[in-house]
Amino acid sequence: MSAIRYELIKTCKQSGARLGRLHTPHGVIETPIFMPVGTQATVKSMTPEELKEIGSQIILSNTYHLYMRPGHDLVKEAGGLHKFMNWDKPILTDSGGFQVFSLGPLRKITEEGVHFRSHIDGSKHFISPEKAMEIQNALGSDIMMAFDECAPYPADREYVKNSLERTTRWLKRCKEAHTNTEKQALFGIIQGGMYKDLREQSAKEILELDLPGYAVGGLSVGEPKELMYEVLDYTVPLMPENKPRYLMGVGSPDDLLEGVIRGIDMFDCVLPTRIARNGTAMTSVGKIVVRNASYARDFGPLDPNCDCYCCRNYSRAYIRHLVKANEILASRLITTHNLHFLLNLMKQVREAIMEDRLLDFKEEFFKAYGYTK
Amino acid sequence: MSAIRYELIKTCKQSGARLGRLHTPHGVIETPIFMPVGTQATVKSMTPEELKEIGSQIILSNTYHLYMRPGHDLVKEAGGLHKFMNWDKPILTDSGGFQVFSLGPLRKITEEGVHFRSHIDGSKHFISPEKAMEIQNALGSDIMMAFDECAPYPADREYVKNSLERTTRWLKRCKEAHTNTEKQALFGIIQGGMYKDLREQSAKEILELDLPGYAVGGLSVGEPKELMYEVLDYTVPLMPENKPRYLMGVGSPDDLLEGVIRGIDMFDCVLPTRIARNGTAMTSVGKIVVRNASYARDFGPLDPNCDCYCCRNYSRAYIRHLVKANEILASRLITTHNLHFLLNLMKQVREAIMEDRLLDFKEEFFKAYGYTK
Repeated sequence: MSAIRYELIKTCKQSGARLGRLHTPHGVIETPIFMPVGTQATVKSMTPEELKEIGSQIILSNTYHLYMRPGHDLVKEAGGLHKFMNWDKPILTDSGGFQVFSLGPLRKITEEGVHFRSHIDGSKHFISPEKAMEIQNALGSDIMMAFDECAPYPADREYVKNSLERTTRWLKRCKEAHTNTEKQALFGIIQGGMYKDLREQSAKEILELDLPGYAVGGLSVGEPKELMYEVLDYTVPLMPENKPRYLMGVGSPDDLLEGVIRGIDMFDCVLPTRIARNGTAMTSVGKIVVRNASYARDFGPLDPNCDCYCCRNYSRAYIRHLVKANEILASRLITTHNLHFLLNLMKQVREAIMEDRLLDFKEEFFKAYGYTK
Repeated sequence: MSAIRYELIKTCKQSGARLGRLHTPHGVIETPIFMPVGTQATVKSMTPEELKEIGSQIILSNTYHLYMRPGHDLVKEAGGLHKFMNWDKPILTDSGGFQVFSLGPLRKITEEGVHFRSHIDGSKHFISPEKAMEIQNALGSDIMMAFDECAPYPADREYVKNSLERTTRWLKRCKEAHTNTEKQALFGIIQGGMYKDLREQSAKEILELDLPGYAVGGLSVGEPKELMYEVLDYTVPLMPENKPRYLMGVGSPDDLLEGVIRGIDMFDCVLPTRIARNGTAMTSVGKIVVRNASYARDFGPLDPNCDCYCCRNYSRAYIRHLVKANEILASRLITTHNLHFLLNLMKQVREAIMEDRLLDFKEEFFKAYGYTK
C-alpha cells in the first residue's frame, strides 16, 4: 500500500483547478497548497509552532543540505527529521539533484550518478539514485523526490532528450532502491524542458512506473513566465487525475494562481522567506520594499488587509527600523507575514475552487496586487 | 509625585539582600530583577510576547542607538518607545553616555557635553545632559538614567575625581531639564571608580538631589571581580533604603548573586543575549559551548534541569546543527534559554530571600554551575 493517498474533492467549473486532500503518514493536507521551505531542517527564522499558526500544512526540506550537514545518519539517529526539528506534520524532501547540478564546475555527471565537491569544505562526494533514496529513507520524509536532472534553460533539444531519458533510468533505480514504501511515498519528476514532445515522452516513460505522485520539474529556471504557463498547458493534462501534481520551485503569487488554474496541487519556493530577509514583503497591495525611506514614518501595518501577528502588532516604520538596524526580528516579522500571505492566498484559492469562481478571484487578486495582465 | 515608588518587603537574614516591589507607570516589578537589553528597540531575536513568557518584567533600551537610528523624534511620533516596539511593560533607558564615551577617538568631552561622530555614518553630533533628557523624554521610558561619565579602569585618582564631579554637575542639569517627572523617573549614578573616598564623595553629592532611584556606575569595566565586590561592599550601604539600587552592566550569574547579597535590586547586561548568538548557553550545569563537536550526537536538552521552550522541544544536537549552519533559529533558541535561565535564577533568588536562605542557595548554585569559589 502506498504511504499517501490523493482524494479529489472537486474540479473548478471556471478552470482546471482541483480541490483535494492528500492523506499522509503525518496528517491530511488540503490542496492546492504552498509548502514553506526549510532547507537546513528549519524554515529560516520560524519555529514549528509559528508555522502551524499561520497555516503551514507541510514543509519541504533539502536532501543535499542535510546530507552535507549534519548528515543523514545523524538525523536518523535523532529519530528522523520530524523529531530532529520538532515538526510533526508532513515533510517533503527533494532529492538533492537540483542542488548538486547547481554546483556547476564542482560536479561531474555520469550514468552512475553525480560526483561533486561540498560547498562547505570542498570534500568529495557522490550521489546516485540509490544514495538519494538511502538519504531520504534515513530522513524519513513523508514524500521523497526522485533523483533527476533539472535541465537548464535554454538547453538544446538533444541535451534535454538525453537528460530526460537518464532521468527515467534513474527513476527506475530510485524505485528499486526505495525501501520504505509504506511510510514514504516516492514522486517521479517529468522533465523535457520547453519541448512539447519531450514532455510527452518523459510523462509516458515515468507514468509507467505507477508512483504515488508526480511533479513537473525543469520549470521556473529562467524561462519567460508565458513559456512556463504554455508548458504547463500541455504537460499537466498528461498527469493522472488520481495522483497529486507538484510544480517544483514556484512561489510567486501570480505563478501559484496560474499553476492552480492549470491543475497543479502543490508548490514550494524559497521566494517568500528569502525576500523577507532582504526586507521585502508580499502584500495585498503589491510588493513592498520596507527598507525604502518612504516608509520611515509610516505607522500603519505592513499589509492593511492582513491579520497576521506582524500586521496586528507592528508598523512599517518599526519594521523598517529593524531592517535598517539588521535586527533578527525584522526577518522574523516579514517572514511570518510573507508565508502567511501565501498560505492565506492558497486558502482563498481553495475556497474559490469550492465556489467555482477561481478565475474571478484571480482577476480581483491581480488587480489589487498590481499585476498589469 | 515621583513616577515610581520602591516598596521594601523584607531583607534576607543571611545577607544584605532585599526583596521589594518597584511600582512604575507600566506595572509592578518584583525585585531583585535582571533586565534583558533591547539595544535598538528589540531584545535581539525575541518578540515581546516571548519575553513575557519567560518572565521579563522590564527591559532596557539604549538612548544612544535610538537617537542615532531611527531618531527619538520618530519614536515620539510613533507614540513613544513602548508603542513603537509593542512592549507594554516598564522600560529603562540608559543615558547614551556609556556608548558615547566608548567611541574613543570619535568623541571629545567638554563641560558642556560630548561631541562625537556617528558609528553608522560618521556624521557629527553633540549630547549634553539636556539633550540626553530631551531624548529620553521623547522615548517615554519609565526610568531614565542621568548623563554621566563612566570612568575607565584603570584610571588615576585625579581623573576619576574630576570625572565624578562633572557627573554631579551634569546630574543637576539633567534634573533641571527633565520635564516629565510624573511619568518618568530619573536615576542618579554614583561614580568614583575603585576609590572608596571618591565613591563616598559621589554618593554624598548625588543623594542631595533626592532622586527616585540610584545606580552604581563604573563597575564591570575590566576590574577583577573581587575588586567590584569590594567597591559594592562600601558603596551600597551609602545608598538610601527606600529607593531602588541598580548595578549597571552586570549579568553573569555569579555577579548577580554577589550583587544581590550586597543589596542591589536591579541589573542589566548584554551577556546572556550576546553569548547566545555566539552559540554559548548558560545552564544549571555550567556554560555550554554548543558549537563543540562533543554535542554533535547529544540528543538531550540544552539544560537538563530547564523547562523553557528551547529545552522542552530541542536537543543539543539540533541546536548545534543550527549554530553550525548559521540559522536564525539557533540565536532564538539559545537567547530564549539564556534569558529564561537568568530570569529564573532571579526568581529563585527572590524565593531564597523570602525564606532567609540566600547564602545557602548561592553555595548550592555555585557548586552546580561549576564555580570553584
